[in-house]
Amino acid sequence: MELKLYVDRLSQPSRAILIFCKANGIDFQEIKVEIFKRQHLSPEFQAINPLQKLPAIVHGSFKLFESHSILIYIASAFPGVANHWYPTDLTKRAKIHSVLDWHHLNLRHGAVIYLRNSLAPVLGLPLNQEAAAEGEKILVSSLSTIENIWLQGNGPYLLGSFQPSIADLSLVCEIMQLEILNEKDRDRILGPYKKVLQWIESTRNATKPHFDEVHNLLYKLKVKLSGQYQADGMTELKIQTSLTSKI
Amino acid sequence: MELKLYVDRLSQPSRAILIFCKANGIDFQEIKVEIFKRQHLSPEFQAINPLQKLPAIVHGSFKLFESHSILIYIASAFPGVANHWYPTDLTKRAKIHSVLDWHHLNLRHGAVIYLRNSLAPVLGLPLNQEAAAEGEKILVSSLSTIENIWLQGNGPYLLGSFQPSIADLSLVCEIMQLEILNEKDRDRILGPYKKVLQWIESTRNATKPHFDEVHNLLYKLKVKLSGQYQADGMTELKIQTSLTSKI
Repeated sequence: MELKLYVDRLSQPSRAILIFCKANGIDFQEIKVEIFKRQHLSPEFQAINPLQKLPAIVHGSFKLFESHSILIYIASAFPGVANHWYPTDLTKRAKIHSVLDWHHLNLRHGAVIYLRNSLAPVLGLPLNQEAAAEGEKILVSSLSTIENIWLQGNGPYLLGSFQPSIADLSLVCEIMQLEILNEKDRDRILGPYKKVLQWIESTRNATKPHFDEVHNLLYKLKVKLSGQYQADGMTELKIQTSLTSKI
Repeated sequence: MELKLYVDRLSQPSRAILIFCKANGIDFQEIKVEIFKRQHLSPEFQAINPLQKLPAIVHGSFKLFESHSILIYIASAFPGVANHWYPTDLTKRAKIHSVLDWHHLNLRHGAVIYLRNSLAPVLGLPLNQEAAAEGEKILVSSLSTIENIWLQGNGPYLLGSFQPSIADLSLVCEIMQLEILNEKDRDRILGPYKKVLQWIESTRNATKPHFDEVHNLLYKLKVKLSGQYQADGMTELKIQTSLTSKI
């Protein structure tokens, strides 16, 4: 039964699912739905996900969206996925659910608001400084919770584990989105969280070479934006055109 | 092995867990942690949940927080919970996870922002009208999604089901929090969504008499606030004192 992933590698939860499937040797067809080209708003994609959000999957005739539910479904439906990704033990599984639930209104919420508002000038959108500050507050508080609560324990992964779970992938891919900030802002926000930085490296190593391969488009965007941050005399329009036409 | 629920019946996810346990005949000890008395910030409760949020549970030596993960854990760990609450079928379970994941940044997010800002004057807090409007926008959009997408299908429950799941309980308890609004605002927001109103009634009926018993504290608060909304010459301070001392 064919597994189709509707994804955009510039979307953090899309990347988590791609890396998970590749790291577990699961065959799939990658169907690119480019957000910058507004392809997620097309009637074709709306037939897959009526909420018009990425990622989504189709497995045979079964359609599903929301990245955490997709990760859990794939980990459960495909034989051969190592138990540490989504343990069968009820208490271990419950703790992973707890991190995933926490993620939505904390790390995800903070990162999305902060990035949207920090990049607004680059994207030719109106800047809301109050919203950017609020986003940064939630983001920094979330990073502090990861550093001081979720990464407590002996192992290098969330919940003190010695091997990664779907929660590590989801949260690390969220934080990786900060790569597209200018270096100064990224260091200011992430720099104080040494365990977080080490955990990102551990997750990258545990899923190599897929981690960097799937993030490659983001790294390219980082280089492109890095040039734009430094350029003199740039206009918002130029960058917006560049982003929407070339990515 | 004893199950302890750390809850406040004025908290919507606390109520979902209480109703779930009562409807399934699960024995538990209810430990009240009163948010208005800031008991969730005490060192005793921090030892249960380092994030200082309600609800939380302790089952034997196992501690857990985040209401969706708690509902899933209890449904899985206690024999005798009917399958419809959290089906073993992978695709049905995945769809329930999808609704629960969606909930956080949509219905929950909108309802919490809207209520916090609408009730700010009553609670003696500064009113942010822009935030209240933004909250209402997210809340109304979420109700529309429930009406037009999640409640599509033949059955009266989410995903077209004929029996309720943990997702029905979680989302209905969230919407029930709107009871404490004044009647005009509540009708304006909820009135257009006929299927949603019918679904709340179906969920209430499926879990009676526990639904109303657990919501009783909220109904009392509604009556109290209703008097305050109508009273002339009330001061913010009066209501705040009333809320913090008597509820």
